[in-house]
Amino acid sequence: MTQIENARKGIVTAEVAAAAAAEGLAPEFVMKGVAEGTIAITRNRVHKGIAPLAVGKGTRTKINANIGTSQGNSDIETELAKLRAAVSLGADAVMDLSTGGPIKEIRRRLMEVSTVAVGTVPIYQAAVEAAVGKGSIIEMTADDLFGVIEEQAAEGVDFATVHCGITFESIGRLKAEGRILDVVSRGGALTVEWMVYHGKENPLYEQFDRLLVIAKKYDMVLSLGDGLRPGCLADATDRAQLTELITLGELTDRAWDAGVQVIIEGPGHVPLNQVETNIKIQKELCKGAPFYVLGPLVTDIAPGYDHITSAIGGALAGMAGADFLCYVTPSEHLRLPNIEDVKDGVIASRIAAHAADIAKGVPGAIEKDIQMAKARKALDWDAQIALSVNPERARALHTPGVGDGSDACTMCGEFCAIKHVQDYFKKD
Amino acid sequence: MTQIENARKGIVTAEVAAAAAAEGLAPEFVMKGVAEGTIAITRNRVHKGIAPLAVGKGTRTKINANIGTSQGNSDIETELAKLRAAVSLGADAVMDLSTGGPIKEIRRRLMEVSTVAVGTVPIYQAAVEAAVGKGSIIEMTADDLFGVIEEQAAEGVDFATVHCGITFESIGRLKAEGRILDVVSRGGALTVEWMVYHGKENPLYEQFDRLLVIAKKYDMVLSLGDGLRPGCLADATDRAQLTELITLGELTDRAWDAGVQVIIEGPGHVPLNQVETNIKIQKELCKGAPFYVLGPLVTDIAPGYDHITSAIGGALAGMAGADFLCYVTPSEHLRLPNIEDVKDGVIASRIAAHAADIAKGVPGAIEKDIQMAKARKALDWDAQIALSVNPERARALHTPGVGDGSDACTMCGEFCAIKHVQDYFKKD
Repeated sequence: MTQIENARKGIVTAEVAAAAAAEGLAPEFVMKGVAEGTIAITRNRVHKGIAPLAVGKGTRTKINANIGTSQGNSDIETELAKLRAAVSLGADAVMDLSTGGPIKEIRRRLMEVSTVAVGTVPIYQAAVEAAVGKGSIIEMTADDLFGVIEEQAAEGVDFATVHCGITFESIGRLKAEGRILDVVSRGGALTVEWMVYHGKENPLYEQFDRLLVIAKKYDMVLSLGDGLRPGCLADATDRAQLTELITLGELTDRAWDAGVQVIIEGPGHVPLNQVETNIKIQKELCKGAPFYVLGPLVTDIAPGYDHITSAIGGALAGMAGADFLCYVTPSEHLRLPNIEDVKDGVIASRIAAHAADIAKGVPGAIEKDIQMAKARKALDWDAQIALSVNPERARALHTPGVGDGSDACTMCGEFCAIKHVQDYFKKD
Repeated sequence: MTQIENARKGIVTAEVAAAAAAEGLAPEFVMKGVAEGTIAITRNRVHKGIAPLAVGKGTRTKINANIGTSQGNSDIETELAKLRAAVSLGADAVMDLSTGGPIKEIRRRLMEVSTVAVGTVPIYQAAVEAAVGKGSIIEMTADDLFGVIEEQAAEGVDFATVHCGITFESIGRLKAEGRILDVVSRGGALTVEWMVYHGKENPLYEQFDRLLVIAKKYDMVLSLGDGLRPGCLADATDRAQLTELITLGELTDRAWDAGVQVIIEGPGHVPLNQVETNIKIQKELCKGAPFYVLGPLVTDIAPGYDHITSAIGGALAGMAGADFLCYVTPSEHLRLPNIEDVKDGVIASRIAAHAADIAKGVPGAIEKDIQMAKARKALDWDAQIALSVNPERARALHTPGVGDGSDACTMCGEFCAIKHVQDYFKKD
């Protein structure tokens, strides 16, 4: 039985119990969410080495780090180093998006080493194999694609992005409406290209039941991808995006009926004043299924700083109900991220998720800030550094003041406000 | 006549005309805002070398960079370098918060060199002079403080933070309610300490008319400081903060009656779900006076990354109506910022302000993003870099792909989504 089937029978599985315990929630609460589909447990039945993760309503906002190779950047050790850095700084999951080098071997090594859930986008492997084996991406067949999905599921992939909502209907709407940036999802673009070239409907949509059989067998979560997500603010929240989302809502029903867990992927580039709307509409159309957003990026003009544009959008999205934030690194739109980019991306995303958790009232969130505030009051620098989101960086930056301000920092020195009023406000 | 007096008479001054032209607004629109008090023009009558700046309703969200020395960090050249870096990256104003070294000389040099509005917190100079000249900060007199304010106004300071809302009433409320971090504003803490030691009401409150005379003489904007701003999320939006804000609202009326421009300073550390409320309540209590917020920081646990926590809060605040964002650098809570911190702070704050301006529909804001989107569609890297918030950084990070993906970047290479669908979606 899958997690969702067990939960519907009122059974608290070992995975539900572990995921609940990891964030101090009652196992029955998580079980109920899994039964209703508002919480997904991202752990493939055969992927024993990782901690089960609960993603969804009432849980801590989770963050994912995308790693993986591209052409010309395909060193396994580099990707393993990114994995370790992401996990050590607090990534709840990683996705291997490799498209360069020995991608099967890279995935296997990452899955062996990872202590957190691993997601993939199977169409990348299918496309690379078609390019290498058949001379062109376009020669990929539906069977090739399902074959790769089954292979990855059997190896233990915990969640897989499948762009099932790209249909002739949704791409027709996109073309009719007109966009600046059309399609910016890699998997989405490959799917559109394949459909248009062959004049055939998307196999992941047409043969969705075949996908459900695979997902159910391994209890692999289907991450229903947003292949038509907007690639710039001007394209956000348009008819193509919403048509795809409506389809994903319908497929969510079918997955749940089949006992398969789903999460829904969302944008992307979204103006700040449309972020909340995007979350609310997904929650309605997909009946509360967990929402996994990429950013969102609230401006297009900050390449080099898109971890910040995404932290802004991610925090607001999380407050509005997004459950899972895909990090964006400073190198987005410019290059494949290096290890420093990965670190910066994870931290920015954690800050966004935590700010959202405080706003949502997630148990335990504000308590961390209260501890930090008390450490600041006490001018206890060791505690402040230990309580930091990245103690290594806080320690590197902290510089003690001089003279009378030596227990303050160089920002204010002897003019430290906390020092000046501590006697007057001393608690009796 | 001051700007506000001219505007009430329907006169478009040279300063109003210049400030309006700088952002493509009708001079009459800005004039009307100045007359109503919803827009302030931050330029001291004698400070001829800077561009007049309009801060407030209907204008672009402005950003300020705090620079200045502290004890043990008092090199003038370093502060001049910070000033130049901040302005070249887009700071609309700077505040000189120096408390170390020859602070008068530092201010004079900064004011000479600056091409943007310069603000100060005069009580810092008064406190330093009392410490040096009289042996203790506490020996500062009300006349000392007003003397420094007049001196700085006469030298051309464009806006001055004055903590007029700290009264026995507001600090009594603070003590009665109980806070974790009591007072974290440097000027606020000095004021509280002075009041408690001498058993005397705050001279800036008690002799507010004296302040108005000075401000009016030089048309220096009074930035009514929030000395009781919360220093941690747990202390946010409490009775002390709101009592101070109510007082600032009353003083706003008095300033406007006297023909003096004001802006109101706001928090600080605020949970994400209280940010909008904080802005709305200021706009009500202070009758639409421009709101100048510090951050706000939406979590306390990210020292080393507070430019990001502040960009999140600042964007949301800006969208809700905040007019002026004071940057926060990565070194906040840890040390005096260095030049790299200043740069990171300015860029993060600009991103927040721009995201807010798109959301607010400020004319010209989304157009920049549309240009960037078109450059991305065209895979025009020179244009993308030129349109970036910091072209130097975008250029440093951009890495072209290899082989078939050489006109893409190493993120996707030949799997570049834009390349794959460009023919199908080509506009006829």
